[in-house]
Amino acid sequence: MDYLNLVKSIAKKNEKKILLIVADGLGGMPNPNTGKSELETAKTPNLDALAKKSCVGLTIPIEYGITPGSGPAHLSLFGYDPVKHLIGRGVLEAIGGNIPMTKIDLALRGNFATMDYAKALVTDRRAGRIPTEKNVEICQELQEKIKKIDDVEVIIKPGKEHRFVVVFRGEGLSESITDNDPQKENMPAKKISASAADGEKTAKIVNKFLEEVKKIIKDKPPANYILMRGFSKYPDIPQMEDVFALNPAAIATYPMYKGLAQLVGMKILPTGETMEDEIATLKKEWNNYDFFYVHLKKTDAYGEDGNFDGKVKKIEEIDGLMPQFLSLNPDVVIFTGDHSTPAVMKGHSWHFVPFMLYSKYSFGNEEIQKFSERECKKGILGIFNAVNVMPLALGHALKLDKFGA
Amino acid sequence: MDYLNLVKSIAKKNEKKILLIVADGLGGMPNPNTGKSELETAKTPNLDALAKKSCVGLTIPIEYGITPGSGPAHLSLFGYDPVKHLIGRGVLEAIGGNIPMTKIDLALRGNFATMDYAKALVTDRRAGRIPTEKNVEICQELQEKIKKIDDVEVIIKPGKEHRFVVVFRGEGLSESITDNDPQKENMPAKKISASAADGEKTAKIVNKFLEEVKKIIKDKPPANYILMRGFSKYPDIPQMEDVFALNPAAIATYPMYKGLAQLVGMKILPTGETMEDEIATLKKEWNNYDFFYVHLKKTDAYGEDGNFDGKVKKIEEIDGLMPQFLSLNPDVVIFTGDHSTPAVMKGHSWHFVPFMLYSKYSFGNEEIQKFSERECKKGILGIFNAVNVMPLALGHALKLDKFGA
Repeated sequence: MDYLNLVKSIAKKNEKKILLIVADGLGGMPNPNTGKSELETAKTPNLDALAKKSCVGLTIPIEYGITPGSGPAHLSLFGYDPVKHLIGRGVLEAIGGNIPMTKIDLALRGNFATMDYAKALVTDRRAGRIPTEKNVEICQELQEKIKKIDDVEVIIKPGKEHRFVVVFRGEGLSESITDNDPQKENMPAKKISASAADGEKTAKIVNKFLEEVKKIIKDKPPANYILMRGFSKYPDIPQMEDVFALNPAAIATYPMYKGLAQLVGMKILPTGETMEDEIATLKKEWNNYDFFYVHLKKTDAYGEDGNFDGKVKKIEEIDGLMPQFLSLNPDVVIFTGDHSTPAVMKGHSWHFVPFMLYSKYSFGNEEIQKFSERECKKGILGIFNAVNVMPLALGHALKLDKFGA
Repeated sequence: MDYLNLVKSIAKKNEKKILLIVADGLGGMPNPNTGKSELETAKTPNLDALAKKSCVGLTIPIEYGITPGSGPAHLSLFGYDPVKHLIGRGVLEAIGGNIPMTKIDLALRGNFATMDYAKALVTDRRAGRIPTEKNVEICQELQEKIKKIDDVEVIIKPGKEHRFVVVFRGEGLSESITDNDPQKENMPAKKISASAADGEKTAKIVNKFLEEVKKIIKDKPPANYILMRGFSKYPDIPQMEDVFALNPAAIATYPMYKGLAQLVGMKILPTGETMEDEIATLKKEWNNYDFFYVHLKKTDAYGEDGNFDGKVKKIEEIDGLMPQFLSLNPDVVIFTGDHSTPAVMKGHSWHFVPFMLYSKYSFGNEEIQKFSERECKKGILGIFNAVNVMPLALGHALKLDKFGA
């Protein structure tokens, strides 16, 4: 019996409500000029007060030293082993591109590329990073001209620069095919073919699609060819209702996080663009669900931009919203990040993430001075894998039966 | 190679003695009036002094957020993965009911129930919670009239109110049968049948037993029917002598803990009812074994009753006994709990459990002010799964060879 099945075997419904607030990329690193991290720099009286009453610790998103993408980092927080429940790259792109997927779909990520058709060599795998507007224009033309291949529906959606997503929708599609990306420039494109018997139909469909695309773009360099990879089916992940006996809802402003929440069976609640909109939605829907995931995006964006002060300011803004979250009197409220995005690194990192959980049964500690990386290390929870967050939440909400007599 | 086999491969005998003292349900939570837990409230000069010289930490009985029953919590402390080595409900009840089991036995837990025979519906799954004295009376009658079914011996023992235990003793018994509990009132009883081929004999025996019971009680409502579930065979757990090269003994006052110790191969030493009796037994037997498990029950009982002050007082009593334990000069002495039973929760909980191990080789810390939840968090061992306790004990007793050259 694995951990998820253990939890499933003892999970039970009750009337208590869990609120999981995720500030994306919350964890940081000390600014070399001050020696203080973003959280250590920010004035956060509300978070600090809550930390004293909460059980606090640091989470490991995946494992020591491993920097997670948004997909695995969130799956961990949602209680799923992120290494076991891999989400294919194509599916992540489709989710991020706001393409609602169904169980029969196969998604892939595409690059526009430059092909020297005379020599049959891919001379630029990114078609000179064509402007996004050009990408949109080509994708529009492709979508207008290619709606189906045989019995399979084709959905094409542009991304940034040379990137796009394709979703094939039809019965009998499979991940068992090879891709055509040579990975290096001035090499021939690889042949797309079935890597197992169940991939035959898919290989045929994808090759026919490639031929249709070529008919339309091959005389229009630099974007005169496409490379396709990351073929992936919509994953079959146990749903939160089944494994945790929850009736869960998600409030997020970005498609990627709505998509991730939907993967595990959360109901996606329509909301606006701002954190205030998200709180308004939360208040409005508070009586209708027993688990809420609220995603706050901007901390990560400032981190990615290397904007230390911007991230500090956003953290202070979030701190100002905490009384509104707490005014709903959740039985369990968790405040944490999905991973660290230190402004000094301008990107996601492997660093542990500050975590706190407040409930009537959380073991607090007045010695915790602040909600920050170094103070959370002193907390009663210590350092633990983020995949334990859901069982901790369920335990503190008295939603788990005793294991064994 | 799993962890247990790793330890087994390097375990060796020496003359050193390990003393594992388990105060049941030791861990607690802050009293809302004082902000201090039971251990933090108790005056424990002996435990506190020992903590400074010991390696200390907090144990996770099963996993984050998981509240253990006594069975899994103890198996962890004894070095066994509690999820892998599940003990069936029937066996636990038999153990708790002080029925010595053998390897061929099949145990089950029973409920007296009320059956409306005209409509063939179970109208009360607990027979109105008949008084325990009535239960004892019925079980006595059943045992007198039913001693064997075919070649299988039948042992019946009353529990509290409507509950009882049955042990079937005979060759070829199996867990592969379904139970007859409809789980809801006003439903027909389910049919007991084999769920796999090896369950055929058992299903026949259990159905014959049910018919015999009905002949005796069916005209005597409310307890005129029985529901049987939790069918389980005596588990095949590697014995401590084999995996840890120990000659282990157990001193406990309650049948449940004697039974759990016996499951892993400890010799059960007869003792009295009090902690003083247990210490007297320990002193008397000190030369005869190299591992002693001493179980102190009452801390848990006060926690279950929500009696914060009673639990504090019991902890102080235990503290007063520590010099007697230490006077035996054990090479390794461990003081911990099997799980937490915070008085404020009136029941077992998932909270981590204070732990200390003293030996000549334990890495102490004068900064540890007290043996308590929050101080143990600061200890050199940090937070760790309780299944590591036995290897830690063996290591500190120099009973493990180097792993690898």
